[in-house]
Amino acid sequence: MRPSEIKACLFDVFGTVVDWRSSVSRDLAQYAREKGIDGIDWLEFAVEWRKLYQPSMDEVRSGRRPFTILDVLHRESLVKLVERYRIRNLSEADIDHMNRAWHRLDPWPDAREGLARLKRTRIIAPCSNGNIALMVNMAKRAGLPWDCILGAETARAYKPMPEAYLASCRQLGLAPASVMMVAAHNHDLKAAKAQGLATAFVARPNEHGPGQTSDLAPDTSCVDLPARDFVELADRLG
Amino acid sequence: MRPSEIKACLFDVFGTVVDWRSSVSRDLAQYAREKGIDGIDWLEFAVEWRKLYQPSMDEVRSGRRPFTILDVLHRESLVKLVERYRIRNLSEADIDHMNRAWHRLDPWPDAREGLARLKRTRIIAPCSNGNIALMVNMAKRAGLPWDCILGAETARAYKPMPEAYLASCRQLGLAPASVMMVAAHNHDLKAAKAQGLATAFVARPNEHGPGQTSDLAPDTSCVDLPARDFVELADRLG
Repeated sequence: MRPSEIKACLFDVFGTVVDWRSSVSRDLAQYAREKGIDGIDWLEFAVEWRKLYQPSMDEVRSGRRPFTILDVLHRESLVKLVERYRIRNLSEADIDHMNRAWHRLDPWPDAREGLARLKRTRIIAPCSNGNIALMVNMAKRAGLPWDCILGAETARAYKPMPEAYLASCRQLGLAPASVMMVAAHNHDLKAAKAQGLATAFVARPNEHGPGQTSDLAPDTSCVDLPARDFVELADRLG
Repeated sequence: MRPSEIKACLFDVFGTVVDWRSSVSRDLAQYAREKGIDGIDWLEFAVEWRKLYQPSMDEVRSGRRPFTILDVLHRESLVKLVERYRIRNLSEADIDHMNRAWHRLDPWPDAREGLARLKRTRIIAPCSNGNIALMVNMAKRAGLPWDCILGAETARAYKPMPEAYLASCRQLGLAPASVMMVAAHNHDLKAAKAQGLATAFVARPNEHGPGQTSDLAPDTSCVDLPARDFVELADRLG
C-alpha cells in the first residue's frame, strides 16, 4: 500500500469515530432524570443494548429478513430492553427519543481534527452499519465533515458482508485498492482486506470500558497501517 | 409552508447549483486543444450531449433497462456523439476523461455561500440524477459543503419518478413536508410537490445560454418559495 494510491478513506463509526458506550449511557441517564425514571444502571443498559446489535443484523445477513435500517433494529432491541428492565409509562415518542441516542454520540477527541485533515487530500466517508439519517444527524451534531454517507443503507448489506465494502468502493467509482478502511476492530479490517481494500487500525482501548481485552493491537495479518489516532493517520497518509 | 418546519433542503444540481453548459464546453475545448483536436464547436457539442440525457434515463424510468448510474449513461451518449462528430483517435482513457467533465462543473456564483449558510440550520443534500461519485467529485472540486449525497443512485430511481423524492426523505428520516426541494426547473418542483415536499424556485436564466425561454419564472401552482439565488433562499428560510 502506497499512501499516494489511496483516494478515499472509509471509516467504521461506532467505537472507531465515536464513543458509543459513554454517550448512550449519558444520554439515557439524562433523559431518565427528566422523566423521573430511577433505579436503572444506564451504563449496563447501553452495553446490553449493544449486545443485541449483532444478533439483530444477523437476521438480515442470513437473508431471513429483508434489508432493514439500523434505526429500526435498534428500536426493536430497545423495546425488548425496556420490557426486560420493567421501565413503565414510556410513550412511543419517548422510545423514539431514546432510540435516537445513537444519533447523538460524541466523537473521540482526535476525530474531528483528523477527519478535517484527511478531507483536504482524500474523500472521507463512513462505512458504518448505521443508516443515513443516523450518520447525518450524528455528523451535524458532532462536526464530522464527511464528503458523503456510505455504508449499510447505500449498500443494502451489513458489514462484514463483502457487498458492504464493495458497494462503497463502486459508489465512489474507485477500485478497492484505492480505498482504505479505517477501524478500531480487526474483524472489520479483515473483511475489508479480503475484498482488496487497504486497511488502517486505530486502537480505541476504552471503547468497552476498563478491562477491555479485544482489539488492543492491530492484527498484522490484515492491517496495512496502524496509527495511534486519526491525526497520526492523517500524518502517515500525508 | 412555515420555514421552521423545513429540516432539510434537497437540491437539483445540473443547472440549479452548477453551470453545466459553459463548464462542459470549456472542459472539452481545453482537452481538445491538448489532444490537437480542432474544428469542433464544443458549446454545441455540450448541448447535444445534454439532449441525450433525458432519453437515456427514459430507458431506466420505463423499466426497459435496470437502474444504471448516470456516469454510464453519459458515457454511452458521449460515444455516440464522438462517432457523429467523427472525432478520431480517442483512447478509452480519453473518453473516460471527457466523460468526467460532468464531475468538473463550476457552481453559480451564489451557490457556495448560500449552501454554507443553509447548512448552519438545516441538512443540505443534492437530490440529483447524477450518481454518488459524480456528486462527490464535483463537490470536492467546487467546494459544495453537502451533508450527504442523495438522489438517483441512493433511490435507484431517476427524477421525476416519485421514488427519487420519497426515498431521499425516507433516508433522512423526515416526512416530505419537512423537506424542501430547490430547483431552477418547474417540472422538478411540480413532481416534488406532488409527493408532499415543500418547494423553492431559483431562476437560472443563463442555464441554456442567451435566448432561454423556459423556467424564467416560478410556476406558482407548485412553488412555495421563489428566491433570486441561494443567498436569498438562506435569508428567506432564516
